[in-house]
Amino acid sequence: MTLFSLSTTGQISITGKNNSASTIIDAIIKNTGSPIIPNTVDVIKEGSPDTKVRGIVTTMFATMDVLRQAVAKNCNLIIAHEPLYYNHRDETKQFKNDQVFLEKQRYIRDNKLVIWRFHDYIHSMHPDGVSLGMLTKLGWKQYAVNGTLDQFRLPETTLRNLAEELKKIFPKYTFYIVGDPEMKLKNVRLAPGAPGSNYHIELLEKENVDVLVAGESPQWETYEYARDATSQGKKKAVIFLGHIASEEAGMDYCAEWLRGFIKDIPVSFIESGPSYWAY
Amino acid sequence: MTLFSLSTTGQISITGKNNSASTIIDAIIKNTGSPIIPNTVDVIKEGSPDTKVRGIVTTMFATMDVLRQAVAKNCNLIIAHEPLYYNHRDETKQFKNDQVFLEKQRYIRDNKLVIWRFHDYIHSMHPDGVSLGMLTKLGWKQYAVNGTLDQFRLPETTLRNLAEELKKIFPKYTFYIVGDPEMKLKNVRLAPGAPGSNYHIELLEKENVDVLVAGESPQWETYEYARDATSQGKKKAVIFLGHIASEEAGMDYCAEWLRGFIKDIPVSFIESGPSYWAY
Repeated sequence: MTLFSLSTTGQISITGKNNSASTIIDAIIKNTGSPIIPNTVDVIKEGSPDTKVRGIVTTMFATMDVLRQAVAKNCNLIIAHEPLYYNHRDETKQFKNDQVFLEKQRYIRDNKLVIWRFHDYIHSMHPDGVSLGMLTKLGWKQYAVNGTLDQFRLPETTLRNLAEELKKIFPKYTFYIVGDPEMKLKNVRLAPGAPGSNYHIELLEKENVDVLVAGESPQWETYEYARDATSQGKKKAVIFLGHIASEEAGMDYCAEWLRGFIKDIPVSFIESGPSYWAY
Repeated sequence: MTLFSLSTTGQISITGKNNSASTIIDAIIKNTGSPIIPNTVDVIKEGSPDTKVRGIVTTMFATMDVLRQAVAKNCNLIIAHEPLYYNHRDETKQFKNDQVFLEKQRYIRDNKLVIWRFHDYIHSMHPDGVSLGMLTKLGWKQYAVNGTLDQFRLPETTLRNLAEELKKIFPKYTFYIVGDPEMKLKNVRLAPGAPGSNYHIELLEKENVDVLVAGESPQWETYEYARDATSQGKKKAVIFLGHIASEEAGMDYCAEWLRGFIKDIPVSFIESGPSYWAY
């Protein structure tokens, strides 16, 4: 049986039902077209690379609830964009006696799941796979400036109206918004995830950026910059969608992309959704 | 004229109207009782240490709006708990051409203001000055466990009811809350500001902590830990008040404390308030 083969587009195809997690992960990495990323966080977090994969789930966070849904679907390879254990490098030495960590790890091991993180490589795709997913989610393709994925020129609207439009797209989330609700705007820049406030501020400095639609930032950084800008009468604003809302559609796109070259193993996206409720 | 003198309590008093910013700042640091903190962020961020101080404002963030209010009150020493320029160390080399930074700096210099940060030293007071302010704001003195400032045993309530109580205290803020709204709780732990998710998780691991009332955390850290804990049926929750709500009352207390030893210069607290609106 051919486990994988090179398609005419140069993509590796995974066929058959007898592929190991490591075969599939290697193919995914090669298919991103990215050079090898040293010291990447995209490694197997739990499980054996030799595990035969019955089904694949893509998700933003491999939460307890996502893991249970994956097991119910008979999927044993979980591809998550974000960490499994609550910090960027999935360090666990501080959790030796932590009951939340131990129960999650036990659940994963009892169910012989493989958890692989797909973060650095999906962002290294051309175009960035997360941005592609967000473009579909936002429905802003016709507003993209010169074919970019993070710059949009919308029909003139106000900050309040833009927030209302985004709330229709992300109804489960409550955004923190800095800026004058009546501010008129056209030029939107996306900054999904947590790219750092220096990056946020560099974007806000640009003349052709009225509003940044961001993931998250520490509250003493981008928030205060945007507050001062607003207070100075500058036409600048930030809508913080939250980290998950700003990237999760990328893992929905990821499932679709995987189905393009993984032929005989079911692949589905499971929504993590917001971690919080707002009050 | 005696510029300062040692009181019977060992506190340095500042009397008279002719004191420089550096004399006042030195007295404040000595009066905290803290050993000298190497590499502290508590330095003058803008202005001359020789400036004669006409009036003092304490605040959480020296926002543009706070600066204008201070000038309107004829105050020229601003004591802020948090950074002036959007990052912990107030690094500004990246802002050489940033119009928000330049306008703020120009306003401060045109008005000959002195901006001093009071962060590390107020947290080093015994008890922590920020915690003392928060205790008054919360009105939880009768619930404090063994005279602590961050551990409370409340009459049994639910997470939802606790959120409602906190909303009455902080009506301008929208909290992100992780946990079952109907969870019963008694044991509350405070973690103001951004002490890091390792600290948050260490607290949540404790048997005598049902709910953490926190400032802020990256959304891939404490948020996801608390989501998994909840999903595992553990009786754990986090209410994120936001960084400002979780500490601002400390700077109100600070003004009161300063008035105890600064006798002839007016000292007032100005609220920064939330940087965002929620939608």
